[in-house]
Amino acid sequence: MTIVIRRTLMLPVVMLLMMMPTSHADELNGWQQGATLNRIKSFVAAVTDRQSPDFVPPEQRVAVIDNNGTLWAEQPASPQLLFALHQAQLMVKDNPELISQPVFKAANDNNLALLREQGIEGLLQLFIATHVGLPIVEFDARVNRWIVEAKNPLSKRLHTDMTYVPMMQLLAYLRQHDFDIWLVTSGSAGFVRAWSERVYGIPPDRVIASELKTEYRVLNGRPSLIHMPEVGFINTAGNKAVAINERIGRRPILAIGNADDDIAMLQWTAAGDGRRLAMLIHHTDGEREWAYNKSKYASSLERGLQLAEQSGWLVVDMKADWRQVFSWQ
Amino acid sequence: MTIVIRRTLMLPVVMLLMMMPTSHADELNGWQQGATLNRIKSFVAAVTDRQSPDFVPPEQRVAVIDNNGTLWAEQPASPQLLFALHQAQLMVKDNPELISQPVFKAANDNNLALLREQGIEGLLQLFIATHVGLPIVEFDARVNRWIVEAKNPLSKRLHTDMTYVPMMQLLAYLRQHDFDIWLVTSGSAGFVRAWSERVYGIPPDRVIASELKTEYRVLNGRPSLIHMPEVGFINTAGNKAVAINERIGRRPILAIGNADDDIAMLQWTAAGDGRRLAMLIHHTDGEREWAYNKSKYASSLERGLQLAEQSGWLVVDMKADWRQVFSWQ
Repeated sequence: MTIVIRRTLMLPVVMLLMMMPTSHADELNGWQQGATLNRIKSFVAAVTDRQSPDFVPPEQRVAVIDNNGTLWAEQPASPQLLFALHQAQLMVKDNPELISQPVFKAANDNNLALLREQGIEGLLQLFIATHVGLPIVEFDARVNRWIVEAKNPLSKRLHTDMTYVPMMQLLAYLRQHDFDIWLVTSGSAGFVRAWSERVYGIPPDRVIASELKTEYRVLNGRPSLIHMPEVGFINTAGNKAVAINERIGRRPILAIGNADDDIAMLQWTAAGDGRRLAMLIHHTDGEREWAYNKSKYASSLERGLQLAEQSGWLVVDMKADWRQVFSWQ
Repeated sequence: MTIVIRRTLMLPVVMLLMMMPTSHADELNGWQQGATLNRIKSFVAAVTDRQSPDFVPPEQRVAVIDNNGTLWAEQPASPQLLFALHQAQLMVKDNPELISQPVFKAANDNNLALLREQGIEGLLQLFIATHVGLPIVEFDARVNRWIVEAKNPLSKRLHTDMTYVPMMQLLAYLRQHDFDIWLVTSGSAGFVRAWSERVYGIPPDRVIASELKTEYRVLNGRPSLIHMPEVGFINTAGNKAVAINERIGRRPILAIGNADDDIAMLQWTAAGDGRRLAMLIHHTDGEREWAYNKSKYASSLERGLQLAEQSGWLVVDMKADWRQVFSWQ
């Protein structure tokens, strides 16, 4: 367990620690007892036990974790896409002529099917139009205003209540065991960082995300970073492995994803020396969440399941392995 | 002071701390007493004192620091350029016909003047040729073999002995005050990360650097990151501000550079709310180091000095402000 202590606060913190129980029996109680949970625990035990041949020093206990579909729900669409829809609707209010563009028409009608018919190009057009043109600080505030009230259109729950209880517990468990947790998401840095620390306890510098092309300019004497209407880096598939190396500079020992888009991240992690754990969250629970493997625009998980079988990756069966999915269930 | 403690190690660490003196009278003794040192100390005191209106919580005490000419010497050329020369010489041994190319001819003759005549394009050609084609792990090993024996051609000292004593002390002082220190360098990530933790105590994930374009591929069943013979990101000038935002996601409160190339980083830092410190190291000491402002290929410092005067940035006069420059002097 790593505790960051300011020296002036040390004595009270030490006293507090001495009062804490040393076991946390209920810390993973959103998981069913069984092979999946055992495999997670035995991995963590092996890399944290100084007597183990698999021991990994704390500074090298790097964990990389996907966001959409891994830490929170991505059905019927990723929250960032729903945020983009909302922003597009505000734009249409101000500029009704925008509706002549199919992407804005689809967004304005909350018509996800029509939006997806516009293809990746259409989605990128929507993202860029709704994410560009604001100073970073104002964009953050806009995301935060939205996220405290926006609800999942199917469950009618806040997006921040659509996080998976077992995964939130796993984050806490990994932190207790000195893991250095990085969020590796296809979402944009500006969107995810606005809430990742509050919701996941993951600070801005631990978010590896997609980026719009950005330029530095001094405007009217004011140093400014300006998002260009152009994609700078899309953090998906092989790019996730590239970004992990560029940003962390160490190979992770634990990787968790839920889609074929996460294969490279899992492969890159698993191919390192020593003990590693590569995990896929499989959406099998049509009652408590959604059951899906194939999806044209959200995460597909097909090749990943084959590779998991060949490579011994751990596949988490949401229906069988999770006692609880959402906190409100 | 932030101390990271494993719980099992807590009691001995607490005992050790209780034996430590609480003042570190000599910790900045490479600096002359005077206005420059006072300004650094009063900035650190203000942002770390909970009673101060300028107090900044530890997680926001972000410091960004340039490398060449700021933490270690960059004359007669940056160590990375000298490394590239060395690698080029090894390549010429294996492939003598390479010498027909002016860049390799200049490198083989250790002729920096001739090399610089090839312009930025020629330098990039040399960097790419000497930095591409090896798996990352082998490249690290190659850098480490070189850096433990390579010497500055003028001083005949190891490059790692060409670090500035006052700056090494400042790094320690900032760490004692819970600053989160990031190295922001135009050098390449692969080169700098090979030794930054050992020499500066700055771990790989705190190095923001230039990057070659990199691709993920599975080669003969082996997940691999391959450097392409193409520049991906050059971490200079305005790009330093862009990269700081993308990587850290928080605006620094302290920035230190030594060149016009660092202006954007200092401006971006200084333009934040609250108390900030922007610092330039000015190479004024022709006896103990080198005195230079203008340089065609290394760092020039001209506009930076004007801006420092207009903006109240702290200019460190190496000759007047440093009692010691190198540890062996």
